[in-house]
Amino acid sequence: MSAQNKSSRIDEWILQKIYRAAGQPSVRLELRNSAEVSPKDPPVVANIVIRDRKTLFRLLLDPEVEFGDAYCEGRISLEGDLISALEILYPSLPQAEHQSWYARLVSKCMEYVQRNSLRGSRRNIQRHYDLNTDFYQLWLDPQLIYTCAYYPSPGATLEQAQAAKLDYVCRKVQLQPGERVVDAGCGWGALALHMAKNYGVTVRAFNVSREQILFARERAKELELSQRVEFIEDDYRNISGECDAFVSVGMLEHVGREHYRELGSIIHRSLAKTGRGLLHFIGRNHPRPFSTWTRKRIFPGAYAPALGEVMQVFEPWDLSVLDVENLRPHYAKTLEQWLARFEKSEQQISEMFNQEFMRTWRLYLAGAVAGFRAGTLQLFQIVFARTACQRIPWTRAHLYKNDQHEEQETKWMYARS
Amino acid sequence: MSAQNKSSRIDEWILQKIYRAAGQPSVRLELRNSAEVSPKDPPVVANIVIRDRKTLFRLLLDPEVEFGDAYCEGRISLEGDLISALEILYPSLPQAEHQSWYARLVSKCMEYVQRNSLRGSRRNIQRHYDLNTDFYQLWLDPQLIYTCAYYPSPGATLEQAQAAKLDYVCRKVQLQPGERVVDAGCGWGALALHMAKNYGVTVRAFNVSREQILFARERAKELELSQRVEFIEDDYRNISGECDAFVSVGMLEHVGREHYRELGSIIHRSLAKTGRGLLHFIGRNHPRPFSTWTRKRIFPGAYAPALGEVMQVFEPWDLSVLDVENLRPHYAKTLEQWLARFEKSEQQISEMFNQEFMRTWRLYLAGAVAGFRAGTLQLFQIVFARTACQRIPWTRAHLYKNDQHEEQETKWMYARS
Repeated sequence: MSAQNKSSRIDEWILQKIYRAAGQPSVRLELRNSAEVSPKDPPVVANIVIRDRKTLFRLLLDPEVEFGDAYCEGRISLEGDLISALEILYPSLPQAEHQSWYARLVSKCMEYVQRNSLRGSRRNIQRHYDLNTDFYQLWLDPQLIYTCAYYPSPGATLEQAQAAKLDYVCRKVQLQPGERVVDAGCGWGALALHMAKNYGVTVRAFNVSREQILFARERAKELELSQRVEFIEDDYRNISGECDAFVSVGMLEHVGREHYRELGSIIHRSLAKTGRGLLHFIGRNHPRPFSTWTRKRIFPGAYAPALGEVMQVFEPWDLSVLDVENLRPHYAKTLEQWLARFEKSEQQISEMFNQEFMRTWRLYLAGAVAGFRAGTLQLFQIVFARTACQRIPWTRAHLYKNDQHEEQETKWMYARS
Repeated sequence: MSAQNKSSRIDEWILQKIYRAAGQPSVRLELRNSAEVSPKDPPVVANIVIRDRKTLFRLLLDPEVEFGDAYCEGRISLEGDLISALEILYPSLPQAEHQSWYARLVSKCMEYVQRNSLRGSRRNIQRHYDLNTDFYQLWLDPQLIYTCAYYPSPGATLEQAQAAKLDYVCRKVQLQPGERVVDAGCGWGALALHMAKNYGVTVRAFNVSREQILFARERAKELELSQRVEFIEDDYRNISGECDAFVSVGMLEHVGREHYRELGSIIHRSLAKTGRGLLHFIGRNHPRPFSTWTRKRIFPGAYAPALGEVMQVFEPWDLSVLDVENLRPHYAKTLEQWLARFEKSEQQISEMFNQEFMRTWRLYLAGAVAGFRAGTLQLFQIVFARTACQRIPWTRAHLYKNDQHEEQETKWMYARS
């Protein structure tokens, strides 16, 4: 047997091992110029080509991180629909408890290095959100809302759905003119500005991303809302004073599970006796670390909690959970629309960043669509209030009145229009 | 100083101690013919008279159980509005961690004696629900629904609100004709019959209360639904076979917190790959044992969980929480209406039972109204589904279409009509 033949057999054996470990997905797997493995029956959703043997070996050790890294660096290429392929591949990734010792060690070390101390949080947040506002403007909606939209009907545009989301949040917390609102983790400020403009409230909006705060202050000036919205470059742990509503959209993912009780203490300290609030965040069905690859390349220090974990925010304090809604299909749709805009802006983005960046962000966005479609990720909105709060609507019917919710027939999840 | 004078002083000292421990509530407290303590400022919501010194001493040791027992046995009397007095008194009862050693010991022992083993559950359930169906017919609605109603508007009658609740549950789990439903803890069968009659599904309904099962079977015959609804006298732990929807309204309170994972395993075992389900139960803002007095006199083995605890039902399995609604004001209203009917039927009830029974049940119902008003109790409905379930409505708007929800203006909690 020739040496080449022998190494080919080893390659095929490893390829088979990886393929079986992934639950024999409907994809064709190839080590270039050496070995391949195909599903027994059609369909074949994608053709994945591994460029070199080193990548093959590293896939054995930590498939999640290595698949991502190799894809970004061009050591793995994928023909076929990326989202559909990831939708098949991601649920088959080994759960934390079944990962190799190496993958678990990498995950743990990363957790430590990226821990969300006051300084660590600032560093983690700035790495993602201070990237370049021009870049985000290419593929987000004009208000730069970088969280799950709410589509009253599946046919709504991204702009409509983001505006509807802002309003949905305000209606859920029952804002009244003159009230004082805290917005924790305010992004580029769209929600804070929407509240002040349309609900007559005053807002103190917190964020540790300097770029975002500077942009938000500019927008407040343009809209002549600087008197009613204060954008504060600070950590949620430094929020002081009293408020009637405490709102946080898309921050909890960056808080870290070891800080939920602390976040609860801040809410408890801030919220007036009859106050209400809302948390909007990416969650899980089961407690599970955030994807190591995503923490490494996209969101350092991120954690998406299961509902049981989030209750640590509320249960030690005098707070009542009033409403929890899972908007998973809405985030799948939001991300699909972001990804489509991202691809449309390919030319401009590649003038800002290199090809590896393009591939990294493509994988991140497509992977997130896949996660929300497959249900490995969830999107929760939790409405809460002080136990003594009497400003609670009798039913939730008011959320669905006089707006764009389709009157015809019930639309189902994944009514991918 | 005369002996009488001296003992009077001791009485007053104890009375003061009890009064301060209760947070100096707006009630007048009196030990008959000996001592009294009054709030410094009006209003005085109630006048509580303790008949003898033994009761006074026992109040020191375990205020919750002794107040209840003494009220029922006529050793404590209360002038004024019972609900309002309890609304003031209950939140001031010491939390589990601050109870006396004696009260904690009683609570723990009771937990053991009333544990929800297969046999224990049957005994616990039968003690309450097998009491006498004629009795329940005097004050529940005609369908004998013994769980929180849903008032589309605060002006709805109890009958309307119970019918609306049944429909609300069916809409939340999106029943389709031909589907197979499990109803775990079916009471007198109203929900199971409603589903089969109005949604074209087949139902297997489980209950360990013989009286309730016999009654439900009779109703199924009358309604000619025996072919479509099977009432099974058995424990939820013995549910077998597959279903498309798993519904349980008012059973979780009797499951016991040590069995949540087990209940989850039953749901996981039963639910089809695309199945949905709903749990409806009395809950809490914080983990805390159920009132010892209520477990002693009314609901042996009961436990009302905080949401974080309930997540043990879902998180070990392939299940997604889709929607959580807190219907606390609806249960306050339901209980008010039950209590009013109970009082109206006083004559007939006192022909069935003695005065102590009347007082026990009055205290239980009024105490529950107070608990839901004050927020020491919550009522949660949780909708869940298999992660792979695609039959999930795009929004929740369909729950609020073409029905009796008031179109005018938002009604607030405690719009006590």
